[in-house]
Amino acid sequence: MPALQFELTHTQQHSKARAGKITTDHGEIETPIFMPVGTVGSVKAVTQQQLYNDVHAQIILGNTYHLYLRPGLEVLEAAGGLHKFNGWHRPILTDSGGYQVFSLAANRKINEEGVMFQSHIDGGKHLFTPEKVMDIERTIGADIMMAFDECPPYPSEYKYAKDSMELTHRWLDRCFTHFNATPSKYGYTQNLFPIVQGGTYKDLRTASCQYIASKDATGNAIGGLSVGEPMEMMYEFTALCCEELPENKPRYLMGVGTPWNILECIDLGIDMFDCVMPTRNGRNGMLFTTRGVINIKNLKWAKDFSVIDNQLPNEVSQYYSKAYMRHLFVANEILGLQLASIHNLAFYLWLVKEARKHILQDCFTSWKNDVVPVLQQRL
Amino acid sequence: MPALQFELTHTQQHSKARAGKITTDHGEIETPIFMPVGTVGSVKAVTQQQLYNDVHAQIILGNTYHLYLRPGLEVLEAAGGLHKFNGWHRPILTDSGGYQVFSLAANRKINEEGVMFQSHIDGGKHLFTPEKVMDIERTIGADIMMAFDECPPYPSEYKYAKDSMELTHRWLDRCFTHFNATPSKYGYTQNLFPIVQGGTYKDLRTASCQYIASKDATGNAIGGLSVGEPMEMMYEFTALCCEELPENKPRYLMGVGTPWNILECIDLGIDMFDCVMPTRNGRNGMLFTTRGVINIKNLKWAKDFSVIDNQLPNEVSQYYSKAYMRHLFVANEILGLQLASIHNLAFYLWLVKEARKHILQDCFTSWKNDVVPVLQQRL
Repeated sequence: MPALQFELTHTQQHSKARAGKITTDHGEIETPIFMPVGTVGSVKAVTQQQLYNDVHAQIILGNTYHLYLRPGLEVLEAAGGLHKFNGWHRPILTDSGGYQVFSLAANRKINEEGVMFQSHIDGGKHLFTPEKVMDIERTIGADIMMAFDECPPYPSEYKYAKDSMELTHRWLDRCFTHFNATPSKYGYTQNLFPIVQGGTYKDLRTASCQYIASKDATGNAIGGLSVGEPMEMMYEFTALCCEELPENKPRYLMGVGTPWNILECIDLGIDMFDCVMPTRNGRNGMLFTTRGVINIKNLKWAKDFSVIDNQLPNEVSQYYSKAYMRHLFVANEILGLQLASIHNLAFYLWLVKEARKHILQDCFTSWKNDVVPVLQQRL
Repeated sequence: MPALQFELTHTQQHSKARAGKITTDHGEIETPIFMPVGTVGSVKAVTQQQLYNDVHAQIILGNTYHLYLRPGLEVLEAAGGLHKFNGWHRPILTDSGGYQVFSLAANRKINEEGVMFQSHIDGGKHLFTPEKVMDIERTIGADIMMAFDECPPYPSEYKYAKDSMELTHRWLDRCFTHFNATPSKYGYTQNLFPIVQGGTYKDLRTASCQYIASKDATGNAIGGLSVGEPMEMMYEFTALCCEELPENKPRYLMGVGTPWNILECIDLGIDMFDCVMPTRNGRNGMLFTTRGVINIKNLKWAKDFSVIDNQLPNEVSQYYSKAYMRHLFVANEILGLQLASIHNLAFYLWLVKEARKHILQDCFTSWKNDVVPVLQQRL
């Protein structure tokens, strides 16, 4: 059971864009990669068969906060971990729950020990500490476990960002100590990725990157971006972090983003992405396509019988018409949510695969510059 | 373009149970058959790919009332009919909208001409007449169109049931006159099935059967049952109608029912069924299985990691565990609705296929008597 391996297959000339391959005990992941978010053990409105065969997902996320509350650790442990519970047999990454505690839970109290909070479901009181979160992620059975961090809001004062970053670093030490003192739970290797914080202050980000890099983890993540700051600032800090974080480890930019965000950040050296956008926006009728963005509820699609996107290599996008999709949304049919989610995820997975292809051909940046204005069009 | 053909393959000894084959321009249907209900052009929460490959559906229903309101005839006609609109390329049957007008619409006013009603969606006023309903079903493009009828409630006074039946018969004449005067719309043959009414009065039911049979349609339907009357009464009137309706035409019992209702009525000579129960009850967490009925929300399934039903020949039923399904329902995940709908429909289609197999082996009734108590168990 070796730890996660990262092979840097190719770095494009005149760009930081990289093509690589991550190997885990649940299989390989070609990078750059987009990871669908499976909040409560289900990628919303998509079956595991559709994830395998239509979306072509290689790795999915689980949310520690949600899975801890439902179905809970007792059920997950009895099942033999999340892979066996939900039938997803490729790699799984879990976040640390930190972000959800701050965005969803009530009556949060943070101190050196950890975070006390009340469940958004039943108001029950819970304490997350670095050690407890490691135990939870071990029990969920993630191939990649994220360190427990505090994610400061944007904007944050310098002092708040600095104190928060330092707390995150101390928590990281406790995460690694506990992680190293506990075995992988279900017979395959689990990995721990630390998370860079530091708000939107260059010296803090640099310091955080250096601290995170010193842990020599199998991969590194960048947190606290895409939380409301201007897009150019997000790119600027992503570039800064990519400069500082080691080249021979995968770099994961958490919670990003739109299709064009993803392409720009690949160009800066990011390898892994996750975002609820393709599923959440899909459920609201926004379809990302190779020709631009569609609001499928618009009347203009009522008699457009062309398929959603004939450029995508999956059945759903090439089978159902825009007119039928619009009808499903107007009539509030569940099927609309399903098809939109599958289509958007398939688009995101197609996009990173195309990016990889162009990196390997040393023409990523010019392709990206051509394609971004097309993808951003409102159709 | 021949009209619908019905081949009576085999009638079981010592029973009225029949195995047959219906041939339409969109393909063959092996009977007895269950038809999933695709109300607004979508079988709720199930993709067309899943209907083909997981459910093994051979024919689906569309609701005339719903499709007339949304997406409306202009869109359906522009699409070239419902098959092209929703991508379901096997046979489609449409009801006449009569039942929905009486159960869903507001301010109904019925007279000799037809029914004036207000849409349950926007309150808009509409008039359904036999002629208009024939035009609507032609435009939807159903392979099997149902006649426009009035479905009296249970219980109804004798005079009401008799007047209503006679109105339904006069409307039927108008349906046939208009149907015969108009061509099939999209290059394939459309068929018109008349509907027996007459409430729960034997003389009325007999008279209605004889009137309906006199039309020499390609198939005949029984309406107005399973509307609240005791189950034994439903069986009694189904038996009566099967006696009266011609043997060489398919018999369709509308809106029935539970798995055991279906087996009992197959034994009485019914060939075709439809019901919202597998999808509607599935969305409420009721799973029909080969071992009995499961309320998947019950705590008892929380750690039952056995699959939903290992006897069913479809991936969903053999892939996902009861514990995972319960979790999806408890956490209000859309995926639960999808998987429950696919499983229940696959179970219904398996059930009628097993029924057919046993009819062909002349052992249907004894198999049915063995299996019904098992299917009815609450697990």
